[in-house]
Amino acid sequence: MAPVDFSPLFFPKNIAVIGVSNNPVGGLKYIIAHEISGYKGGLYSINPKYVDEGVGGRKVYASLLSEGVPEIDLCIIAIPAPFVPDAIRQCHQKGVKFAIIFSSGFAEAGNMELDQQLRVAIAEGSTRVVGPNCLGVLNSESRVTYFPKLEFFPGNISIVSQSGGTTARLMAYILSLGLGVRNVVSIGNSVDVTITDLLLYFKDDPKTEVIALYMESIQDGRAFLEALKEVTKTKKVVLWKGGQTEVGGLAAQSHTGGLAGSYNIWKAAMRQAGAIHGEYFEQVVDLIVSCSLNVPLPQSKKIGVVISGGGLCVEFTDTLIHNGLELPELTEETQQKLAKVFPDVNTAFRNPVDLGEYGYIPQYFQQALKAVTDDPNVGTILFVRESERFEMFREILGVEDFAGETYKAIKNVVYSTQKPLIMNSSPNWEELDFIALRHQFRDKMYKLHIPDIQLIPHIARVINELYQYGRYLENVK
Amino acid sequence: MAPVDFSPLFFPKNIAVIGVSNNPVGGLKYIIAHEISGYKGGLYSINPKYVDEGVGGRKVYASLLSEGVPEIDLCIIAIPAPFVPDAIRQCHQKGVKFAIIFSSGFAEAGNMELDQQLRVAIAEGSTRVVGPNCLGVLNSESRVTYFPKLEFFPGNISIVSQSGGTTARLMAYILSLGLGVRNVVSIGNSVDVTITDLLLYFKDDPKTEVIALYMESIQDGRAFLEALKEVTKTKKVVLWKGGQTEVGGLAAQSHTGGLAGSYNIWKAAMRQAGAIHGEYFEQVVDLIVSCSLNVPLPQSKKIGVVISGGGLCVEFTDTLIHNGLELPELTEETQQKLAKVFPDVNTAFRNPVDLGEYGYIPQYFQQALKAVTDDPNVGTILFVRESERFEMFREILGVEDFAGETYKAIKNVVYSTQKPLIMNSSPNWEELDFIALRHQFRDKMYKLHIPDIQLIPHIARVINELYQYGRYLENVK
Repeated sequence: MAPVDFSPLFFPKNIAVIGVSNNPVGGLKYIIAHEISGYKGGLYSINPKYVDEGVGGRKVYASLLSEGVPEIDLCIIAIPAPFVPDAIRQCHQKGVKFAIIFSSGFAEAGNMELDQQLRVAIAEGSTRVVGPNCLGVLNSESRVTYFPKLEFFPGNISIVSQSGGTTARLMAYILSLGLGVRNVVSIGNSVDVTITDLLLYFKDDPKTEVIALYMESIQDGRAFLEALKEVTKTKKVVLWKGGQTEVGGLAAQSHTGGLAGSYNIWKAAMRQAGAIHGEYFEQVVDLIVSCSLNVPLPQSKKIGVVISGGGLCVEFTDTLIHNGLELPELTEETQQKLAKVFPDVNTAFRNPVDLGEYGYIPQYFQQALKAVTDDPNVGTILFVRESERFEMFREILGVEDFAGETYKAIKNVVYSTQKPLIMNSSPNWEELDFIALRHQFRDKMYKLHIPDIQLIPHIARVINELYQYGRYLENVK
Repeated sequence: MAPVDFSPLFFPKNIAVIGVSNNPVGGLKYIIAHEISGYKGGLYSINPKYVDEGVGGRKVYASLLSEGVPEIDLCIIAIPAPFVPDAIRQCHQKGVKFAIIFSSGFAEAGNMELDQQLRVAIAEGSTRVVGPNCLGVLNSESRVTYFPKLEFFPGNISIVSQSGGTTARLMAYILSLGLGVRNVVSIGNSVDVTITDLLLYFKDDPKTEVIALYMESIQDGRAFLEALKEVTKTKKVVLWKGGQTEVGGLAAQSHTGGLAGSYNIWKAAMRQAGAIHGEYFEQVVDLIVSCSLNVPLPQSKKIGVVISGGGLCVEFTDTLIHNGLELPELTEETQQKLAKVFPDVNTAFRNPVDLGEYGYIPQYFQQALKAVTDDPNVGTILFVRESERFEMFREILGVEDFAGETYKAIKNVVYSTQKPLIMNSSPNWEELDFIALRHQFRDKMYKLHIPDIQLIPHIARVINELYQYGRYLENVK
């Protein structure tokens, strides 16, 4: 199967919008969105009813075929569902490369006849269709977008989602963490262009390093799995399957009109195809973040944990083990290294390593983190730094730039190893001042390819998934 | 077993601190803490080395028995471990009611001989001892405290924890959510006063409504379980057991010197004794918050879910069911009520109820929430309100005080039902501005006894635990 060339969709020279009126939540919003997003191509408003008066000072054409409408790469359709099939025929006639159907009211609303009419219309020509019942697409380079005032910036993540809301939420959340996006596609009911098509295109898009998929159903499971297997050889694919339960599947059916299928079969097939697998929003985000930061793949599920505080040691041990990780013993050599740094008898050198209060002094912390990271029994490293308390430690320990020194200590370790490091900031306070301090240090950690993951079960999930992906890559090589 | 009268511990008339020097992290910190906390009683510094010069302008006495030291309810001991047994003997001699041993270096550090000497000294007289290896106690009325500059305010939660760090973190976090505390006890190695003793005291403390326990070990399991059974008849006890795994148990042993025991046996016994059970910090906090807010106990695990957005409906259904809840069908009557409010065909009236965009209009939302809440098939209600988007909805929907109107809509429903309601705010952004909006609405919800729980698995956990507690209460009545 030859990959579809999606360049005209993501980098359209000219965009036409069918259904532009004075209604600000109709087609007009797509015109406004591209006027302000930084998109450099031509914009053409279509609506036979507004040819004379125009819309907000904009010229409006009667149809795609009207004089003055140039070659169109992308046509966005925002008119009532019954009129959409004819609009698609017009796209064919004009030679439009891609159409996005924003309109809803097809299979997801039980209108199977209209769904069929749409499919027939699409099959009559060469225009490829995204949707219906979708938001559209976004590319952070061409500045194609789907909503006015949507702020976005470039990154290595491409998102495809069958849910408009989940598309928007995933993108917004990732951006709010300071990570950018490459492409975003709300694919809706997916009657023509499929997730499979997009997967294969993103495989060869050099600026896409991570693909995040939210899907509720798939038409051709075999083709999808084959494409997935190809893509996961070189890129990380984070897959979130909606409709995991019978009732969830019913909800999915009324949402995007597809059948969800058996979740257990899905899970096994996804695993065999090398997908990284998440099950709800916050967990999926932690997986996407870790992939986007290019966290190295762990060689084992044996985790070395570096903490200050006995209660935290117990909590992390319990919860990491309950969630499928192992805490190996440290070698004699590591224990001796630690004993040299911390001669105080009150600190224990079992794993998790409890550094006590001294562990906050950056140079001691660096030596301890380095010793645990270098331990051959350890495949992955977790450390707790309570960044919200750095100011307090600065005063007590007399280290002027506490956050900066701690950052350097971690940097010196992370650049000397191929093992993944994960941070946890163990929050004590939810007031904004403290959250701001945590965010500042999280941003610094991101620069070192270290995710800051708050929930211990999610830390375990990330390590488990990245470990399994590493095993998968070894097997397919 | 007669309950210990802990009044002199939580409401001491006079406090003496043994081990006050110029070291700001030694005994002096307890003096300073009470000077600024609002504590009204007398404060007496003890240290034979500082009798002549005093400490920071404070008079220092050679010993508890020195002339001028009045009757002492509470003595805090902050001297090296080997000297602690003699200090306890001095407490006995003086007739001190309670001593807190801040000093560490006993069983938790492997010094079993010193631990034994301490136990012998305690047994020689009437002073009851909290610790060693602990922070101490706090009461939001008497303003007894354990750390300078610790801000705290009254509430219905009493905390007992074997870990100093976990004590401090639980308290800080709960206060940062705007919920207050009644008593806080860091009990450390617990060689004399036990969690059991405190449980029985809190049972009769009218201002304690919720008891939160973090424990790693227990000396007399039978007595503890009997006490727990008594207490849970009238008060909610949230129990977090550290040392759930074998390795976690080892970590616990080096932390507080106790043996953790089999977790599965613990879990079954806790359940039989009516405890509400959490397993890691964030989950435990969500349980404590829900209990502190006096969320009604659900009569069933059948949850009615009210959402705007198809993707969210699928996600919540999947994740709630995966975590042990049921989503029942709504009655014909409920569906008809909903159809009257939302004649739009695009919204589905299955459970979860997807209200679509109209569902944000407060009066429509109120009617939908009321219909689902009144459905006899539904035992507990979850609704999603994206409070961070209220400003946007205000503009689009033209409702001036959007947050206020939404609050009123929810208030009208919550005051007309005995069923529990839980909110989820489904965050889209992690920037501080958005977090501030979520916090503002969360505070409003707290006033309505509605917790705002972010993680869907935690929502399910809270409902499961409260449901089981309700069943327990029915059985013991």
